[in-house]
Amino acid sequence: MQELKARILQEGTVLPGGIIKVDGFLNHRVDTVLLDHIAEEFGRRFDMNAVDVVLTAEASGIALAAIVAQRFGKPMIFAKKAKSDNIEGGLYQSEIFSYTYKKKVTLLVSQEWLHDGDRVLIVDDFMANGEAVRGLCDIVSAAGAELVGVGCAVEKGFQGGGDRLRASGVNLHSLAVIDSAEPGNIVFREG
Amino acid sequence: MQELKARILQEGTVLPGGIIKVDGFLNHRVDTVLLDHIAEEFGRRFDMNAVDVVLTAEASGIALAAIVAQRFGKPMIFAKKAKSDNIEGGLYQSEIFSYTYKKKVTLLVSQEWLHDGDRVLIVDDFMANGEAVRGLCDIVSAAGAELVGVGCAVEKGFQGGGDRLRASGVNLHSLAVIDSAEPGNIVFREG
Repeated sequence: MQELKARILQEGTVLPGGIIKVDGFLNHRVDTVLLDHIAEEFGRRFDMNAVDVVLTAEASGIALAAIVAQRFGKPMIFAKKAKSDNIEGGLYQSEIFSYTYKKKVTLLVSQEWLHDGDRVLIVDDFMANGEAVRGLCDIVSAAGAELVGVGCAVEKGFQGGGDRLRASGVNLHSLAVIDSAEPGNIVFREG
Repeated sequence: MQELKARILQEGTVLPGGIIKVDGFLNHRVDTVLLDHIAEEFGRRFDMNAVDVVLTAEASGIALAAIVAQRFGKPMIFAKKAKSDNIEGGLYQSEIFSYTYKKKVTLLVSQEWLHDGDRVLIVDDFMANGEAVRGLCDIVSAAGAELVGVGCAVEKGFQGGGDRLRASGVNLHSLAVIDSAEPGNIVFREG
């Protein structure tokens, strides 16, 4: 998606350790006009008539998932990362390793809200090692729901998480796949 | 807002300790159609032409804030709750006590994205003791930004957080203020 790639080149910065900082428009300050264009693009990549619910993980995926879901009139579920006292009852759980926080995190979705047969589109803003999406796929599977696909805005291709998901048969569309990132030099995957 | 109150009465449940569970449409599974109607109502309560940016706190405020910001073509900033390695540089910080997690949490906003003179609408899905909004107000003040108002979907009036904010001069609009909540009996504040 050219608009997204242009924003990454103009405003993104690369920090030591290959961390790509896009927090001026994607995951701290959020450009909601851009996010709506990303939602529109997902509408071209996926059959939204075959989607019952949009699923993401807190926190930074929520803004994009909400705007995608709202555009297509779907509900959105966000997996929580800690057990809080306003979730009761049975939970689907998946343990992942968070690249951002360098620790294990458990994703939780209440069994009340995700059901056998639900057709699910997973949406996330940013994929590094792909652990969050892998955890969400596990939850979809545990619920007996059907995974329509995964829509991701920015994928760090050089960390391999996206390619592992594709190899396992997941219908993953990332709108900007970064194949290498050094300060002042971000290279996107072709096509 | 009648539509929101009706949903709370139909689908909300009251747990021991006065916890009001609305996670089927507001803060776990999110009804994006309802959230867009809430955004529309905020557009009647606040002058959106006088708003430069929508501010919220992660995680559950993000969905509503994103949909409000998107509807009115504004950027949205969400305060983070832990220092992660993709925030660099100066941070506005405010320590709050989280009612949900029963512990102190620090709200963080990068100084890069909130500026002197920005006109800010704070949006949150749910107010209990009002600590998250108080922390966000502190951050607006620390940035030298201007607080236009606070739009909240559901306020637990009996915990007093909203009334403390109003008493301090904050232009707070909550679309459903719950004055008492017992299992099977939720009472809204008049007017």
